[in-house]
Amino acid sequence: MADKKYVYFFGGGNADGRADMKELLGGKGANLAEMTSIGIPVPPGFTLSTEVCESYYENNKQYPPELKEEVENSLKRLEELTGKKLGDPENPLLVSVRSGSAVSMPGMMDTVLNLGTNDEAVKGLEKMAGNRRFAWDSYRRFIQMFGNVVMDVEHEEFEKLLDARKKVKGVKLDTELTAEDLMEVVSGYKNLYKEKTGGNFPQDPRVQLWKSIDAVFGSWNNARAIKYREINDIKGLLGTAVNVQTMVYGNYGEGSGTGVCFSRDPSTGKKYFFGEYLMNAQGEDVVAGIRTPESLDEMKKEIPDKYKQLDDIKDKLEIHYKDMQDMEFTIEKGTLYMLQTRTGKRTAQSAIKIAVDMVKEGLIDKNTAIMRVSPDQLNQLLHPMIDPNTDVKAIGKGLPASPGAAVGEIVFTAKEAEAEAAKGKDVILVRIETSPEDIGGMNVARGILTARGGMTSHAAVVARGMGKCCVAGCSDLHILNESECEIGGIKLNAGDYITLNGTAGEVIKGQVHLVEPEPTGDFAELMSWADEVRTLKVRTNADTPSDAENALKLGAEGIGLCRTEHMFFEGNRIDAVREMILSEDEAGRRKALKKLLPMQQGDFEGIFKVMNGLPVTIRLLDPPLHEFLPHKEEDIEALAKNMGVSPDKLKKKVESLKEFNPMLGHRGCRLGITYPEIYEMQVEAIFLAACSILKKGIKVEPEVMIPLIGTVQEFELLREMTIKTADRIIKENNAELKYLVGTMIEIPRAALVADKIAEVAEFFSFGTNDLTQLTFGYSRDDAGVFLPEYIEKGILEKDPFQVLDQPGVGELVEIGIERGRKSRKDLKIGICGEHGGDPESVEFCHRIGMNYVSCSPFRVPIARLAAAWAQINE
Amino acid sequence: MADKKYVYFFGGGNADGRADMKELLGGKGANLAEMTSIGIPVPPGFTLSTEVCESYYENNKQYPPELKEEVENSLKRLEELTGKKLGDPENPLLVSVRSGSAVSMPGMMDTVLNLGTNDEAVKGLEKMAGNRRFAWDSYRRFIQMFGNVVMDVEHEEFEKLLDARKKVKGVKLDTELTAEDLMEVVSGYKNLYKEKTGGNFPQDPRVQLWKSIDAVFGSWNNARAIKYREINDIKGLLGTAVNVQTMVYGNYGEGSGTGVCFSRDPSTGKKYFFGEYLMNAQGEDVVAGIRTPESLDEMKKEIPDKYKQLDDIKDKLEIHYKDMQDMEFTIEKGTLYMLQTRTGKRTAQSAIKIAVDMVKEGLIDKNTAIMRVSPDQLNQLLHPMIDPNTDVKAIGKGLPASPGAAVGEIVFTAKEAEAEAAKGKDVILVRIETSPEDIGGMNVARGILTARGGMTSHAAVVARGMGKCCVAGCSDLHILNESECEIGGIKLNAGDYITLNGTAGEVIKGQVHLVEPEPTGDFAELMSWADEVRTLKVRTNADTPSDAENALKLGAEGIGLCRTEHMFFEGNRIDAVREMILSEDEAGRRKALKKLLPMQQGDFEGIFKVMNGLPVTIRLLDPPLHEFLPHKEEDIEALAKNMGVSPDKLKKKVESLKEFNPMLGHRGCRLGITYPEIYEMQVEAIFLAACSILKKGIKVEPEVMIPLIGTVQEFELLREMTIKTADRIIKENNAELKYLVGTMIEIPRAALVADKIAEVAEFFSFGTNDLTQLTFGYSRDDAGVFLPEYIEKGILEKDPFQVLDQPGVGELVEIGIERGRKSRKDLKIGICGEHGGDPESVEFCHRIGMNYVSCSPFRVPIARLAAAWAQINE
Repeated sequence: MADKKYVYFFGGGNADGRADMKELLGGKGANLAEMTSIGIPVPPGFTLSTEVCESYYENNKQYPPELKEEVENSLKRLEELTGKKLGDPENPLLVSVRSGSAVSMPGMMDTVLNLGTNDEAVKGLEKMAGNRRFAWDSYRRFIQMFGNVVMDVEHEEFEKLLDARKKVKGVKLDTELTAEDLMEVVSGYKNLYKEKTGGNFPQDPRVQLWKSIDAVFGSWNNARAIKYREINDIKGLLGTAVNVQTMVYGNYGEGSGTGVCFSRDPSTGKKYFFGEYLMNAQGEDVVAGIRTPESLDEMKKEIPDKYKQLDDIKDKLEIHYKDMQDMEFTIEKGTLYMLQTRTGKRTAQSAIKIAVDMVKEGLIDKNTAIMRVSPDQLNQLLHPMIDPNTDVKAIGKGLPASPGAAVGEIVFTAKEAEAEAAKGKDVILVRIETSPEDIGGMNVARGILTARGGMTSHAAVVARGMGKCCVAGCSDLHILNESECEIGGIKLNAGDYITLNGTAGEVIKGQVHLVEPEPTGDFAELMSWADEVRTLKVRTNADTPSDAENALKLGAEGIGLCRTEHMFFEGNRIDAVREMILSEDEAGRRKALKKLLPMQQGDFEGIFKVMNGLPVTIRLLDPPLHEFLPHKEEDIEALAKNMGVSPDKLKKKVESLKEFNPMLGHRGCRLGITYPEIYEMQVEAIFLAACSILKKGIKVEPEVMIPLIGTVQEFELLREMTIKTADRIIKENNAELKYLVGTMIEIPRAALVADKIAEVAEFFSFGTNDLTQLTFGYSRDDAGVFLPEYIEKGILEKDPFQVLDQPGVGELVEIGIERGRKSRKDLKIGICGEHGGDPESVEFCHRIGMNYVSCSPFRVPIARLAAAWAQINE
Repeated sequence: MADKKYVYFFGGGNADGRADMKELLGGKGANLAEMTSIGIPVPPGFTLSTEVCESYYENNKQYPPELKEEVENSLKRLEELTGKKLGDPENPLLVSVRSGSAVSMPGMMDTVLNLGTNDEAVKGLEKMAGNRRFAWDSYRRFIQMFGNVVMDVEHEEFEKLLDARKKVKGVKLDTELTAEDLMEVVSGYKNLYKEKTGGNFPQDPRVQLWKSIDAVFGSWNNARAIKYREINDIKGLLGTAVNVQTMVYGNYGEGSGTGVCFSRDPSTGKKYFFGEYLMNAQGEDVVAGIRTPESLDEMKKEIPDKYKQLDDIKDKLEIHYKDMQDMEFTIEKGTLYMLQTRTGKRTAQSAIKIAVDMVKEGLIDKNTAIMRVSPDQLNQLLHPMIDPNTDVKAIGKGLPASPGAAVGEIVFTAKEAEAEAAKGKDVILVRIETSPEDIGGMNVARGILTARGGMTSHAAVVARGMGKCCVAGCSDLHILNESECEIGGIKLNAGDYITLNGTAGEVIKGQVHLVEPEPTGDFAELMSWADEVRTLKVRTNADTPSDAENALKLGAEGIGLCRTEHMFFEGNRIDAVREMILSEDEAGRRKALKKLLPMQQGDFEGIFKVMNGLPVTIRLLDPPLHEFLPHKEEDIEALAKNMGVSPDKLKKKVESLKEFNPMLGHRGCRLGITYPEIYEMQVEAIFLAACSILKKGIKVEPEVMIPLIGTVQEFELLREMTIKTADRIIKENNAELKYLVGTMIEIPRAALVADKIAEVAEFFSFGTNDLTQLTFGYSRDDAGVFLPEYIEKGILEKDPFQVLDQPGVGELVEIGIERGRKSRKDLKIGICGEHGGDPESVEFCHRIGMNYVSCSPFRVPIARLAAAWAQINE
């Protein structure tokens, strides 16, 4: 490994690296190299690869021995290329040191600017810039940044000294301080530095450089960065790269500036050159949202030639990368430099529009377009919007930083957000501006509202990434203290409800009615491409005709789970259900069931009609009976009167139906076996409905699903009953009707004896909710006490009720499929747990050979896209 | 298959069959053939094989076409050999038709005697016997038996006619009726027969024969026989054979008689020729317990030559079969015939003594001896006996029909017994005599008491087989009606308590204190042979030093499960436990734990001392915390006062700890992770105890077991804490101590990811109680509602909480072992669920390669023997 290369140079139109070396050079480094190679003006520099970072952590924070020399060589090349020298009192080379990993982690790791400034170089800087104040301001900034980032001296401590000077001079703004003031400040900073670190501020630029490199590599594993990777599910990276790059200054004065731009609108996806810039500012001023910047339209008017050059570069980069670019630029005394380009983060809406447009423009193919929109992202598109028919009045206006709408109670800190959300509350995080420390709170909030910052501020970028509604830079918002704020002059307290419209950038007082958006246009087009690709079918879990109708609109290809018990709760049906349960004998139950039969039949007719020939899987009664029972004294008394029995007797019966562990109790097919008349009624209702719908000329494809099977004997008994009842009704109606009888696999034992069960069952539907409960031994209702701690401590990567646990539950599913198909080669297999709508789980279902997934209606498009991804990734 | 043989002849010193053809000929048929071959006097006959029965049920109750001819040929040989002819008016051949399967099912299937009698043959019989009354009595009996067994006419109906005749004649006993009376009765029987069956009583002996054969084959699947096979776990048989055998008569008059004998005492096992006989009686009179017979000692005095012949035959048969024989004989006019020999049923005590004696006599080897005592049987030996220090006074005396003692409430019918036992009550079934219809009630009763019948009566034979205490033929017992009886003049009602001493044959009023027997003598000798053979270790589940001491006496080789939470309930410790649970913070918990530490340490010291260097597996806290909490108002108030908090606050805390499904909730290692201080205290207590015991020069081998592990991360975290704590204490005490840290595998997921877990765990103990709950999704506390119905309907063969479910739960255990050993070849593996003491499950554990089983102390010998069986069967 002696010839391993650790440092990659870029500059003068040539580069050691390429865009496809992101793993090694990080996204920033790889793109700086690529841009250099294709002739984009980039300040020269070099990149220490991620392998250095890996080696650094593997070898107890020691660098590979070859590194020193490679860095020295690169510095030499840099000095030759720029004609400047590190620490030179005439013509000093100043550099930035920045992190950059393969996956962008905005604001998560450390950056040091103006490196190379010292008591000598500051003089050279003054000469070069012809601006003494600028030189000392740069020096001041460098000491502050170095002291804070590298040496852990608190930012606040430096600010205090600066404020003290302003007070002395009786001024308000930094810019009102003179060069001499800043020299005083530098002197104060140096003292502070010595006091806090026990050593002098290093004058040697090489010491400055290595300490900064240490700090960037060290920042890879700071708490913020780890949390960010956790939340964003970033894994398998070697580490960060370190980019050392010649400084260019957007704050050289009036002819200078800096900005951030996107080759298309990251919010809407429109093909529109979108960005913001600030004259006489450094890049950090834009990103941190400290000053509110101007739009590129303004730039076009103000400095049209620079705008034109930037616009051309933007086109070149987008065509080169074939994707929407997020770029940073700096104009130094009239010269435009590109500091970064990367794939732009975008909203789901924008991702879809860009993907579809680029196919039409011939830039990419359909599969690439599909892979440009992540299934997770669709979530935000399918999120609620403010009902267009509602008349709302905004109390505040801000930037439409991330679309969608959100309703929640006001919280003022990230910590509070996490605490309230943990109680199950919907919260809106309200902040002056957000910072990386707020990540946890932003993640659990329904929406984010900030008083300061632009469309590329931290809050906006992070919220868009999370697919979360955000209104940024709302100047009508004034935070008064930790529990009060004013918006448009209206005082609001923590806990008060507000509604955000992230699409319009509006804040509304109170709770506004939200509606689901219609999936049409580009969305529909992209989904149709996904449908062409995927092999995994997508069904929906729907219990009512209206659910079914919604799901059909969203592309469902059948019903994978129709829960018959939900029908039992509708209207006053519950009375008949209770009467059935509390009857002393079979005759009593049958009497009550007779009342329920026509109601269930009607339900099924409604669903069959909507589904119009698509398969409908109907699960027979599943929950324990006492879930249907009255528990309040007065309800019991009313029911007793209705049934003509004594309230005492009824109370005893209710009591006797209580279970220690209802989840493991008398439910599912166990009810079907001990009270066969209940299942019989349900099967009758299904087939009476099917025959009646058939007569109307509508096709029907019923699949009767028996829940909670643990032994093949249970299934055999109930299958026999089902077939006997179904065939009798079909015969009585002179109908011709094909149907299937199958089972849920949700008891671990069922997966283990799937070969036996498949001998008689025509389909399997994995009920991964219960299967997860039993495989882990977690009660979904109780696990909330320890699950959050489990995830925090890394015992579980994710909540297994949200994302299928592949090594455990998934293993049982695989065993079930393998054994099931051994007995019945063409066994139809699906999943109907919550996991059927989770992209990662859908991919797993595809990989292990399921025929379909079934999920809640609004997750159907997510599953469709995830299935296409799975197929393309294969 | 044309040369398949269906009928096997025996007679004249030759036989087609052999003793080892039991599967084909049934036990009775095979032994009749064998006895014939070795020169024992057996009435000749032939056997229709079990394959006929199988074919009969497979072909819709049609016989194989060849059968008719084979039976005709055999009848012809029989007529030739006996010189008699079926239906002959001079010299009629009369035969019995009896069932006989490979496994003895006493009284379960049907028998027809005196077949061949008709209006003509009765005359021949009179001539042969020289006794008209006998001839007509035989005819009467035949019609009654044929009518009842073959044609389903109620027994009672025949008895009524007989009683009517007795009334007419003013007599009390059957024997007081004359031949003429019996001719009248026969005439009445024939009318009854015609009335009930719609046809004449068949005069053709071949019709009689075939109808009887039909009836016997038909009886194989009657309800009684099916229930018997179910209770006795008899499976895999082809069916029953049918034995057609020449009749011999024990009721030919004074020189005739019949009896049942055993080559050794079936109750004690003593080498003593034990039996009973009745002169001038048919065999059924002895078995049915209608007349109380005389002992063989009496026979020795009365007919010494016959006794001598019988004694010689007994010796010959025992040496030939190398096992204790149960024989039936008949003396017809001075000629001795053996009608049956079979391996004798025996009590556990007797089985052990016979096995050990036979090894000493050189008849069998040790392995054979081991296989002669079934592990299940040991149960009765380990059952309680009346405390010898108790002064009891019997109110009634009977025969010591089956040893052991039992206490329970009186019930008078089998149905009542089942109903009361289902409520969890201990019952004693009190009957005049029992019959096969009573099987269900006998099975659930603690003990059985009958007023009539001998040591070979139905009650006695069945009770011994079940290992259940029985006092038979208690003449002091008078049953007054369905709810009252008198014993020794004392009136007792249903529901009153009595105690039976089956070893002494005594009935005691009220509840007497029972004690466990000491396992010594022959028992200890046999167990030592079992220990030599077996490779599977046997440990015990013990939570206290006294449990541990008991188990050591019974041969335990270590503790496989010590449940630390049980210690929490002792004395007033529960107060400290409650304080710990209800503390608001860690500091409060630690304060309470400090109080518990010395108590737990003391417990462990006691156990380590008793176990004296044997391995002790200690499970850290397992149950959900609210199991320890007070629920009554006053208890909460008292505790609140103690803790210095408000009762309301405490009540809220108690409420907040309630769970929907505690079995799937916050328990086991989940507690150890959220409240690490609890497990820490327990580990401290274990190692402080170990070090203190070590200092006394006693060896200690602690194994710390972490319960409810589902992911390797949980185990890693808690293992780290355990090792850190243990090593600190060992170091502080300058001790040298080896210990293991392992886990229970009781969550399905743990079995699936056992490879990962075994990378860090040093042992696995399968907690098959929880594993069964989760694999089936059954709550042990709730499944009682449907499990009985499941077993009755054949959905489950057995209660999976008693006998390990091999296809489901067992499959997971196998997966766990295979994956665990893949990571750690020498992984120590055991089981600590209830199944560790169930013979069938123990055999499974041996087969799949476990190192040990662990069970409750009194089951240790059962497990030891089962392990030896498993090894020998291998």
